[in-house]
Amino acid sequence: MAAAKGTILSGMRPTGRLHLGHQSVLNNWVRLQEQYNCFYAVADWHALTTGWEEAKGIGKNTEEMVADWLASGLDPDKSTIFRQSRVLEHAELHLLFSMIIPLSWLERVPTYKDQIQKLGEMGKDINTYGFLGYPLLQAADILVYKANAVPVGEDQLPHIELTREVARRFNHLFKPVFPEPQGIVNKETAVLPGVDGAKMSKSYQNYVSIGADPEEIKRNVNLMITDPGRIRKTDPGNPDVCVVHKFHRIYNAGVLEGIETDCRAGSIGCVACKKQLSSTLEQQLAPIRERRDQVLAKKGYIEEVLQAGEDKARAAAGKTMEEVRQAIFG
Amino acid sequence: MAAAKGTILSGMRPTGRLHLGHQSVLNNWVRLQEQYNCFYAVADWHALTTGWEEAKGIGKNTEEMVADWLASGLDPDKSTIFRQSRVLEHAELHLLFSMIIPLSWLERVPTYKDQIQKLGEMGKDINTYGFLGYPLLQAADILVYKANAVPVGEDQLPHIELTREVARRFNHLFKPVFPEPQGIVNKETAVLPGVDGAKMSKSYQNYVSIGADPEEIKRNVNLMITDPGRIRKTDPGNPDVCVVHKFHRIYNAGVLEGIETDCRAGSIGCVACKKQLSSTLEQQLAPIRERRDQVLAKKGYIEEVLQAGEDKARAAAGKTMEEVRQAIFG
Ligand code: SF4
Ligand code: SF4
Repeated sequence: MAAAKGTILSGMRPTGRLHLGHQSVLNNWVRLQEQYNCFYAVADWHALTTGWEEAKGIGKNTEEMVADWLASGLDPDKSTIFRQSRVLEHAELHLLFSMIIPLSWLERVPTYKDQIQKLGEMGKDINTYGFLGYPLLQAADILVYKANAVPVGEDQLPHIELTREVARRFNHLFKPVFPEPQGIVNKETAVLPGVDGAKMSKSYQNYVSIGADPEEIKRNVNLMITDPGRIRKTDPGNPDVCVVHKFHRIYNAGVLEGIETDCRAGSIGCVACKKQLSSTLEQQLAPIRERRDQVLAKKGYIEEVLQAGEDKARAAAGKTMEEVRQAIFG
Repeated sequence: MAAAKGTILSGMRPTGRLHLGHQSVLNNWVRLQEQYNCFYAVADWHALTTGWEEAKGIGKNTEEMVADWLASGLDPDKSTIFRQSRVLEHAELHLLFSMIIPLSWLERVPTYKDQIQKLGEMGKDINTYGFLGYPLLQAADILVYKANAVPVGEDQLPHIELTREVARRFNHLFKPVFPEPQGIVNKETAVLPGVDGAKMSKSYQNYVSIGADPEEIKRNVNLMITDPGRIRKTDPGNPDVCVVHKFHRIYNAGVLEGIETDCRAGSIGCVACKKQLSSTLEQQLAPIRERRDQVLAKKGYIEEVLQAGEDKARAAAGKTMEEVRQAIFG
């Protein structure tokens, strides 16, 4: 007997165009859609938990992000791609969970006090009811599809643990409706720095977009910090302290050893080394850029994909909620 | 120009058959449906905030309660009668409000700490995330219909005040979508004691049901505590300490003075006095009982009423939520 396909739920906050730092996550999503029944959510409600001021323009940001998803290989025929806020069953399950989950469970989530403090230092007050309940909304997002696996970063594992506890508590109090999902930590996640060597991030303006055009690629590669000890191009270089090298490691793995040797020997100049990176990036990002342009050129296509995904998501979530209502009220 | 009709939202937790203590609230609802656009909710999600253990059998309890509503004169052609849990927009708005409402606003609601303590003394632990957020769910219930008036008991006024603050905060942060609803305290609320003189309550089994049959009426009136100082029926009585008298005051107001005089003079016996009350109650409850029987005899009728109400409620709530989404995300 063939084992039933597992179910995956994952999501991203709609922050607009993605950058190369997101690519390993996306590539993982693309791989997962071959083996799992995948639900990929635009987490627009989550975006409000830490900044409802930024909600404006979320429509445009959603479109840009989903274009990147599709360009990177997410396939609406294989995966369910949807906006969280259009599937009200997430809010319903969140509300029902709220009735059975002690306040203390949420107060002790490790990220909670940390984040309040961190954002507080940035002058941002997020001490809202919703911010406290955020991990419970995540639990509802996951469990409403009975997902049994969730690709996450290491730092998200405590939230998955809470999700498992919520599932156990519900199953114990009412009926065994939910699986206890596992977090899948993507070991291949390669951390790409920004062009300035700091963390690649939207807010630092130091990123290369997914589907960047040759102009943007060249400009950003030129901005990349190289070994500061190298004055002339014949000086021996140290690739370990060079941002260009970190990109070669990922996008030029086949010739990495040669580059390292040449750099250390002083037989390749940084300008030439950067040219090589630019041309590799251009080559590798070109098909993504083309798909991105195609996707955006079809007027209304992304909205169509999302609405079709939302119909599928609502059907799946609705089925779970019938069981949930039956378990609680029946 | 005729003023637009105001909108009312009110609700009751589905506890099964109602008793005479509920009648003044219901009569008020019936009056209000002539002047307002009224939404009357079976608050089944609220029932979970203080006891998800009691959720079982909520279907039967809902049917019994709605039968009493209809029997008492609520008219599905005039008012929207529905189950809160079937209109997911309540949960959506609750979630969105949670993102903008500081935890401290909820922690300082006067009933919050009181109730936790009170129920704690009864061995009931309700320190859940949902119990803390309960007044916010009420705010969503009210504002999702843009209700501008809410009939409440005196003790609920702080919740209405919170609702007004939530509306103000939303309107200020985004766009002026919501009215600031007023609490209408029903001054005519007559507090009827239970047959034993204690509070009339389901849990004390000391009540007379709305639509009680003559048998139940007689049995309960016979159980009513009279002036304990009266030994013989010719002894002068004190109606002020008599449960029967409190019922006469409401159901026999026209002849109340006569009864009081006769009681104090010792010229009417308690048995006769009770007979008089029984016959009045029988007379006044008979039409309610008949309507109740009719309503319950039509197989599926109550479910039909609720589903039609839920369609109307969803349409109204959906319209508000479009404005809300536009205000936040647009
Ligand atoms: S040669 Fe290449 S790897 Fe070496 S420092 Fe220059 S840019 Fe970096
Ligand atoms: S006569 Fe009537 S009012 Fe007076 S004590 Fe008896 S029951 Fe009460």
